Amino acid sequence: MPNRENAPLFEKMREHYERRPASFHVPGHKSGRGADREAAPFFGPLMALDYTEISGLDDLHQPEEAIREAQALAADCFGAEETFFLVGGSTAGNLAMIMSLCGPGDILLVQRNAHKSVLHGLMLAGAHAVFISPQTDGESGIPASVRLSDVEDALSRYPEAKGLLLTNPNYYGMGVNLRPYADLMHRHGLPLLVDEAHGAHYGFHPALPESALACGADAVVQSTHKMLTAMTMGAMLHLRHDRIDRERIRMLLAMLQSSSPSYPIMASLDLARRQMHLHGEKLVAEGLKAVQRLRDGLENIYGFRQLKHRSAQTAYEHMDPFKVTIYDGTGTLSGSELQGFLEEAGCFVELAADKAVLLLLTPASTIEDAERALGACEAISKEYLTNKQELPGISPNSMYKPLLNSVSKPVPMNIPVTRDVKNSIQDSVCVMPIESSAGKRSAEMVIPYPPGIPLLYPGELIQEDTAAELKRLAESGARFHGSREAAKGRLRVLTDTPEDTCNSNIE
Amino acid sequence: MPNRENAPLFEKMREHYERRPASFHVPGHKSGRGADREAAPFFGPLMALDYTEISGLDDLHQPEEAIREAQALAADCFGAEETFFLVGGSTAGNLAMIMSLCGPGDILLVQRNAHKSVLHGLMLAGAHAVFISPQTDGESGIPASVRLSDVEDALSRYPEAKGLLLTNPNYYGMGVNLRPYADLMHRHGLPLLVDEAHGAHYGFHPALPESALACGADAVVQSTHKMLTAMTMGAMLHLRHDRIDRERIRMLLAMLQSSSPSYPIMASLDLARRQMHLHGEKLVAEGLKAVQRLRDGLENIYGFRQLKHRSAQTAYEHMDPFKVTIYDGTGTLSGSELQGFLEEAGCFVELAADKAVLLLLTPASTIEDAERALGACEAISKEYLTNKQELPGISPNSMYKPLLNSVSKPVPMNIPVTRDVKNSIQDSVCVMPIESSAGKRSAEMVIPYPPGIPLLYPGELIQEDTAAELKRLAESGARFHGSREAAKGRLRVLTDTPEDTCNSNIE
Repeated sequence: MPNRENAPLFEKMREHYERRPASFHVPGHKSGRGADREAAPFFGPLMALDYTEISGLDDLHQPEEAIREAQALAADCFGAEETFFLVGGSTAGNLAMIMSLCGPGDILLVQRNAHKSVLHGLMLAGAHAVFISPQTDGESGIPASVRLSDVEDALSRYPEAKGLLLTNPNYYGMGVNLRPYADLMHRHGLPLLVDEAHGAHYGFHPALPESALACGADAVVQSTHKMLTAMTMGAMLHLRHDRIDRERIRMLLAMLQSSSPSYPIMASLDLARRQMHLHGEKLVAEGLKAVQRLRDGLENIYGFRQLKHRSAQTAYEHMDPFKVTIYDGTGTLSGSELQGFLEEAGCFVELAADKAVLLLLTPASTIEDAERALGACEAISKEYLTNKQELPGISPNSMYKPLLNSVSKPVPMNIPVTRDVKNSIQDSVCVMPIESSAGKRSAEMVIPYPPGIPLLYPGELIQEDTAAELKRLAESGARFHGSREAAKGRLRVLTDTPEDTCNSNIE
Repeated sequence: MPNRENAPLFEKMREHYERRPASFHVPGHKSGRGADREAAPFFGPLMALDYTEISGLDDLHQPEEAIREAQALAADCFGAEETFFLVGGSTAGNLAMIMSLCGPGDILLVQRNAHKSVLHGLMLAGAHAVFISPQTDGESGIPASVRLSDVEDALSRYPEAKGLLLTNPNYYGMGVNLRPYADLMHRHGLPLLVDEAHGAHYGFHPALPESALACGADAVVQSTHKMLTAMTMGAMLHLRHDRIDRERIRMLLAMLQSSSPSYPIMASLDLARRQMHLHGEKLVAEGLKAVQRLRDGLENIYGFRQLKHRSAQTAYEHMDPFKVTIYDGTGTLSGSELQGFLEEAGCFVELAADKAVLLLLTPASTIEDAERALGACEAISKEYLTNKQELPGISPNSMYKPLLNSVSKPVPMNIPVTRDVKNSIQDSVCVMPIESSAGKRSAEMVIPYPPGIPLLYPGELIQEDTAAELKRLAESGARFHGSREAAKGRLRVLTDTPEDTCNSNIE
């Protein structure tokens, strides 16, 4: 059994490389020899390790040797009983987690501001989602965490639910202590599933929140590539306890992921794990120095504000220090303008919201990075903000008025209907004005942005309040994701009967 | 519009790299700076291009700039109307292709010796598969292509079928001219889907077969990483004509693949495309020199035989010259023994069958590779075969007796039942002796190996003949994939009623 100082998969791959073997197997570039000459400086070295399931290199879908060892070490490192390396990102983990628990018609309690892969998992499973709306952070208007009492409420209404899926932390690093949620679910004999895509680093340093696994979660998905050092698409699914069907997880992962998983990506998971296993606290501490430099510096740049967790905020309990969300306190510059000016200065942010930008730092971020960002912000401040008034208490996202019931009725989730493939003979779709849509079921997802919480999921019943709010948003010029009609004051709805009045000549 | 000499995605990525930007976005390794030091020589250069969806780098799931251009050039290069880059391998393409066409209960005609991702696509769709058995090559016992007449038969029995999916070529490079199949399907107003995972190089040189797209196929999946120079998991889905719902394909690909697709993998697709676009014929010609050297040399090594297409063979019409399947004509060494000896000599093959090994060459293979393989084979011949008698007409796989009806009844395909999640209240499983199983439905896939064609799919009705053949195979010591019971003379079957006699104390 290898110890934590080993990286068993990477080591086996390097061992093979050092044999200078002749390849009579895929991939076709033959260890990079056939790669494009112009790109070879970038691709050549790693293509030398771009292997397949040959002797000694094990098999992700039936691990018995080096991959099994690497996964076991990862379980030890992150606090799981069993860990699966993922080459399809947290997406693959979320799909498998949900589909392992839910068959057609099964109810899953789900945090409404979940990643779209959670939605897709529900659709592929044909599950019925009971959406629990998160609390919205007053300062930023960002939807954060769900209340424990709302989960209790949902459980009492839907005792047949199969489990609860929480997204913790959210994109901006806002989260709650999951221990009470895990305990609550376990008292009901049910599992807690956690999309911890943004929290693979949690638990490795006292300044960071506890990890979901440490709080008692049964299944946790992490994007090792987002906050740690794996290559993009490298992720992990961790399991604990016996509330999740592990054979089914194995089967689903083998169905949903490539039968030719990438060895470079898998090795990068092994190596990222080793770094944290041996030096996790130190690496986080190094990155936090960069974070501190950036945050301290921002305090002194006129006009710039950063999101911070204040004790009065109840929408979440802790914030990842690595997620630095900044906005213009004078209200002059929009999020995308800030983003554009930062890019001109060579600083590329993770995302731009309506009025803010998110700078995602990680343990690998340096003081130099922080200095560069500060220099760019100084220049922006001098150029655009010096003669502007800082507005007190400005919220970067003040237009959102929370509408949704905390606990939705079960929403049947199915792969959306399209021209050729319908889920039932009832599934015809037509377009109608928003004001006439109450009582119908939405045919599409409607997400006003901000704040980015779906107001309607495909199949969800449209309430009077929801229709009124959508109309208000459309008239005020809000933007929508998911629906191309909403901004025009219309909605695509499912029609139950052919005689349904529907303005089909709009289509 | 860029021309074929461009690699628009790679160029944009390199352009960004040359700005020496500061990253405040994922991935966490920050252009490789945070990567494990020991592995940095391998990972560093490519991690520098491990980007995310930042300005100018487009978005695979909503391509409008460099990725759109790269895909358009790929469509031009391979002969499609529209091409989708895949980061989840041909698996993602097969799943999307099938699920775009079939909803629950829809019938799809499928070549029985299909890749497991085809099976999984059918399960995820809840489709009903009408399996058309391939012809078995007499010399090798390898299942190859389906007869056109069997497809006609299937269409007349199941006119409601949504389409036909063929695997062409198979793993060993055996295939047929697809033009008559495409024409037949089109006369019925139906699409031809082709898993051409092993044929991304087809059509680029006169010595190679025509590509599926050139033969009229409507949807084609290629593993650009297998025979061309993309990184592992890089593949393409190509579409032509209007029989496939492209919006649905787009939607399914976005559901089934990571929301953080790998830029290195996507760039490698762009670069592989450019190589073929500019130098396809020349690159293939170079690789064929290595193939010729290997094949010529093998003719002179005592005991070694190679599979060749002979005019008397009707199970397939052409064979990919790059697939060199060799076996011991004296019958002394098994496939895995051959594999082991070749590995000792540093030559790693693609796969070992019962009596043969497959050496997969590609355009990037060299004369040196061929010489190395020949040296290894010479040594094996001298060591093990010199005083052995070459047997005339030995078949490497002579034990297989084709049993299956050419056209199966529709087999309902569903994600297999497991402990927690059943597809219906009927779906209980029990284990029973093979001889008692006729009339029941198999609960699992049963694949005698060789030849590797599933004798039973989950849900398929067990015929008397099939049960008898399975018993015979089990008693003769055959190996099975998919089923852990078959080799012991038992099968897992679905039970319809709780009173079903089932030897439950075996479990």
